Amino acid sequence: MDFTSDNSAGVHPAILDAVVAAARPQPAGYDSDSWSARLDPAFSGLFGAPVRVFAVPSGTAANGLGLAACVPSFGAVLCHGDAHVEVDEAGAVPFFTGGASLMHVAGAHGKLSVDTLTAAAARRRGDVHQVQPAAISLTQATESGTVYTPDEIAAIGSWAKARNLAVHMDGARFANAVAHLGCAPADVTWKAGVDILSFGCIKNGGMSAEAIVVFNPALAATLPVRRKRAGMMPSKGRFAAAQLLAMIEGGIWLENARDANAGARRIALAAPARLLHPVEANEVFLRLTAAEREALRALGFTFYDWELDGPEAARFVVRWDQDAAAIDSLSSALAKLG
Amino acid sequence: MDFTSDNSAGVHPAILDAVVAAARPQPAGYDSDSWSARLDPAFSGLFGAPVRVFAVPSGTAANGLGLAACVPSFGAVLCHGDAHVEVDEAGAVPFFTGGASLMHVAGAHGKLSVDTLTAAAARRRGDVHQVQPAAISLTQATESGTVYTPDEIAAIGSWAKARNLAVHMDGARFANAVAHLGCAPADVTWKAGVDILSFGCIKNGGMSAEAIVVFNPALAATLPVRRKRAGMMPSKGRFAAAQLLAMIEGGIWLENARDANAGARRIALAAPARLLHPVEANEVFLRLTAAEREALRALGFTFYDWELDGPEAARFVVRWDQDAAAIDSLSSALAKLG
Amino acid sequence: MDFTSDNSAGVHPAILDAVVAAARPQPAGYDSDSWSARLDPAFSGLFGAPVRVFAVPSGTAANGLGLAACVPSFGAVLCHGDAHVEVDEAGAVPFFTGGASLMHVAGAHGKLSVDTLTAAAARRRGDVHQVQPAAISLTQATESGTVYTPDEIAAIGSWAKARNLAVHMDGARFANAVAHLGCAPADVTWKAGVDILSFGCIKNGGMSAEAIVVFNPALAATLPVRRKRAGMMPSKGRFAAAQLLAMIEGGIWLENARDANAGARRIALAAPARLLHPVEANEVFLRLTAAEREALRALGFTFYDWELDGPEAARFVVRWDQDAAAIDSLSSALAKLG
Amino acid sequence: MDFTSDNSAGVHPAILDAVVAAARPQPAGYDSDSWSARLDPAFSGLFGAPVRVFAVPSGTAANGLGLAACVPSFGAVLCHGDAHVEVDEAGAVPFFTGGASLMHVAGAHGKLSVDTLTAAAARRRGDVHQVQPAAISLTQATESGTVYTPDEIAAIGSWAKARNLAVHMDGARFANAVAHLGCAPADVTWKAGVDILSFGCIKNGGMSAEAIVVFNPALAATLPVRRKRAGMMPSKGRFAAAQLLAMIEGGIWLENARDANAGARRIALAAPARLLHPVEANEVFLRLTAAEREALRALGFTFYDWELDGPEAARFVVRWDQDAAAIDSLSSALAKLG
Repeated sequence: MDFTSDNSAGVHPAILDAVVAAARPQPAGYDSDSWSARLDPAFSGLFGAPVRVFAVPSGTAANGLGLAACVPSFGAVLCHGDAHVEVDEAGAVPFFTGGASLMHVAGAHGKLSVDTLTAAAARRRGDVHQVQPAAISLTQATESGTVYTPDEIAAIGSWAKARNLAVHMDGARFANAVAHLGCAPADVTWKAGVDILSFGCIKNGGMSAEAIVVFNPALAATLPVRRKRAGMMPSKGRFAAAQLLAMIEGGIWLENARDANAGARRIALAAPARLLHPVEANEVFLRLTAAEREALRALGFTFYDWELDGPEAARFVVRWDQDAAAIDSLSSALAKLG
Repeated sequence: MDFTSDNSAGVHPAILDAVVAAARPQPAGYDSDSWSARLDPAFSGLFGAPVRVFAVPSGTAANGLGLAACVPSFGAVLCHGDAHVEVDEAGAVPFFTGGASLMHVAGAHGKLSVDTLTAAAARRRGDVHQVQPAAISLTQATESGTVYTPDEIAAIGSWAKARNLAVHMDGARFANAVAHLGCAPADVTWKAGVDILSFGCIKNGGMSAEAIVVFNPALAATLPVRRKRAGMMPSKGRFAAAQLLAMIEGGIWLENARDANAGARRIALAAPARLLHPVEANEVFLRLTAAEREALRALGFTFYDWELDGPEAARFVVRWDQDAAAIDSLSSALAKLG
Repeated sequence: MDFTSDNSAGVHPAILDAVVAAARPQPAGYDSDSWSARLDPAFSGLFGAPVRVFAVPSGTAANGLGLAACVPSFGAVLCHGDAHVEVDEAGAVPFFTGGASLMHVAGAHGKLSVDTLTAAAARRRGDVHQVQPAAISLTQATESGTVYTPDEIAAIGSWAKARNLAVHMDGARFANAVAHLGCAPADVTWKAGVDILSFGCIKNGGMSAEAIVVFNPALAATLPVRRKRAGMMPSKGRFAAAQLLAMIEGGIWLENARDANAGARRIALAAPARLLHPVEANEVFLRLTAAEREALRALGFTFYDWELDGPEAARFVVRWDQDAAAIDSLSSALAKLG
Repeated sequence: MDFTSDNSAGVHPAILDAVVAAARPQPAGYDSDSWSARLDPAFSGLFGAPVRVFAVPSGTAANGLGLAACVPSFGAVLCHGDAHVEVDEAGAVPFFTGGASLMHVAGAHGKLSVDTLTAAAARRRGDVHQVQPAAISLTQATESGTVYTPDEIAAIGSWAKARNLAVHMDGARFANAVAHLGCAPADVTWKAGVDILSFGCIKNGGMSAEAIVVFNPALAATLPVRRKRAGMMPSKGRFAAAQLLAMIEGGIWLENARDANAGARRIALAAPARLLHPVEANEVFLRLTAAEREALRALGFTFYDWELDGPEAARFVVRWDQDAAAIDSLSSALAKLG
């Protein structure tokens, strides 16, 4: 009854089938195979606009390379203080950008807003002595399991455009956000001012590939060489491409996310008074005393204490393939705690 | 009848099976799974010495990260002018090291020697105005399809140790070299002074993982954080580890390499007078006029012109799963050219 | 009546004389001249311990290069949120280190303490997913014009050593701190655990050279090549060395700092109720309404609004060569404001 | 009788006077002083075109920062194999650019040509696997003491523009080249396709400042922040600016260079059969046996063996303030050697 992370999830059968189908010899190395050739059109279809797509082996890689396309070595990225790029990527942004900085922006429930961005930007003079912001990175769904609405993103997008900042979206759980909103993928990306997206697959039934989706064509120019140089252009590129195609061409990405979200909602309903954040995706953050956490663990549930939200916080993540019985058990156990 | 590259090869069934077996959910993200836990002991067994192993998604990544563990940002790597790190990795060495340089060393048939290393080192004064070498990178098997003997490597290793240089081996075709030599893997690595090895799998029946094998424990210290920071610590680490284990635990790595080498030898026997380099691994470099190359292509053979070896050079690579009939056809066609 | 910055100061005559004396031809380029040769012994004498000294052209250079000797590209520096390295050096730390991060530490009046360092460090897990601190940078005198006592530094030094962190001191106003304390330079540096110091001269009567003073010999190893590579090893090194020697050999550094500190104290006495920070060096931070600031400017005083300390803050810096009449006028004007 | 380097030269009195004049207090830090404000117009006058000028503390800094404005971290610079940026700047180009490479180009007497550039470029495919050139760096006067004519530079400039490459000129001895040619500075810079120039002063009677002169306005955009971030925006910027202004406003740069060139020509005339390169600037490269070099040194002459030109090569550099008697003595001594 593991609720530690969606990284524990299995691989969806259709994705596994796609990998198996790509295993036979192919007279086409790097990205010259037929799977890789279909990436751009397939994602362009999904987003209703021409996009460029780059397969990479991790979310950290997607964010790092993607931001390197947006920000010069001497620039900064405005992001939430709890953002994965700040908290859990070991300095990948300065590594990929050659030294760019992260500027923390406040915001309840993991969300940036025009107000908090304005306040953060105002703390920095526009002169040559200070690192100047060149991009915003927002996370959809957020690190707190909440989801930006299209309007919220559009407001941030407009603010950014007025200041000539690129807008990057860390979409490790993009599918969960779209599943929650019931909107078109375009509504929370390019139509709202997003220039580049880390489109997460691995947590959502994938195996070993994530996608960088570039809406702003100017930002795509340097990515091929940056990706190669970073050791992320695999010599058998078909395996990454096949996974990404299987994820989106069959609609699995949205199905899986819906299932995970539904599980999280069921857990949330069992403990409404304990919620630290609205449950809008597949993560549930609960107020639980040390004794309560111990009791749950004694029952066989695994999950993380979540110190970013204080000493009595715990995080439960529901996977696309989470066992329904485990969700039921957890809901019951929480209900019993009262 | 594709002889362009071993990147065209298929995936060995045992490796595919290992990936499929890892597809079920696992309550263990990043490298905390049971496959990843077996990497160090399994490779330690293969090499007969305690080693640290880091799975990475490409040979470029293995070389770049591995050299970053050896060379400071202000140092240089001595390597052959035709080395893959120089010619085909888009500047990955300066990227991963934060600015280290490559110093070209001459050498017939792709091989460095103590003589050519000494000559290269002598061109540089030892003062602060010049970038100082901190490592040697040699390729085994070489870019010219030749293989260093254990004695040749040991001589280079001794030369390096006397100058406090780390020894890195690009082993994209390490298996082919060991298969040719019939020696123990230890004989051409740590016993001969090699500190760190890029152990190639993808060209040799693998799918999407290579291994950095660290013999010198001091060099392993920074690799975990460097790998994470570079986006190469996958959240479902079990898929890479499972591939690497399947490759070595069943002896596939050596079997596949033997098959590929045998195919190359058969082709070489068909055109002995045309050989540009001794054929010791799975690559055959031939002198062929433009008309001859055109004639071969008209028969359906694909291969690369190889300008590094001059205007009349062509490269044929034999894969582990190369069709025997294709090898026969090519041998016949070459024999007919005379 | 300029109180904007000690960067407005003139050059002390003895330093100018030293530069003039170095102007004749010298058969000795780079650092091979007789002035440069005296740097290490002269500073070793000043600090009562063997030190290595590297002349650099700015405080930003001293901090950036110095921290590059302490922190790997994947590490972090713990520093006050108002520190010059964070606020006013345009990202020099990631530039010189190849990507290291700054971690903000809180602290009243610009000072770090063991408590706030402990709190900051506790926010970061020790695992590979997070950037790990490798050094502390503290500023003496601080950005708020306060001065660490030897005991305060020693407490931080001990805390750092227990965690294997290097201790860097930004001493742009080191002389002002020592003048305030009346201690030996050793008492607030190596005896208190400081490994490396940016020894400021330019604000204190110098012209164009600062000194990196290295107490921990292990940290000096890479500085010669880092300095050369960064374009900071001048081909006529004697001019920088001559300035540094003139500054310390005649005791000018301490005299000038005493004069500047005395001026600041006089201003502070004129407006004790307005002080935002204790006045311990040559900077005075005052609470002044917009109208009051306007009134002062109308009288001919120039100074900066200081938003780091809130909307009603202003900073007045007293130079070593500040006109006594200007100090009197400012004191009177402040007294009149009541 | 020192002929080792023009770095041994003294400082011209007019430049020293300018430094002394700037020593009084100035209510203007960084580059806000009146000297700094005159840099752009003064150099624009000298070059007959609007230029941007950035003072830096060394030639290595000028080249490194200047090339960082031209080349992305993933690009390459085409330069002569003997170029100072390659041989004597400790990897400053990868440092300032964040990892760019140098690609060696051949050329007799230190000069690049369209032919050798074409050959070098042809060795590199245009694909993503190889580092692509983004700029040319040529040295005027060259490392071999020769001088490009305006036509030679214009040919290289056209070749570069056709390939979208920036043209950088290392002008550590630019004055010597212009003095030799008797042309306008514009003729060998922007009129011939040069985008950015390291304008050398220190070897030519300066003290501690060189100038980056930017002809192509697009390349100036990032230089202010790059310079600040690299610790090269001094807080008392007036001292560097005053030197540069004194150098060009009085015509000293050209006078000094003429004197140095004349001295070199006299030495060359004494040993015409020994010349390894045409003597067109202030450097004389001679073929001298070990015994002959020893004999000269026994007479009190100092100079460098010059291994880049072979085992029997020696370099003699004449300074702007070289003693006429020393030149006479050397000429006589060489004549006697026969």
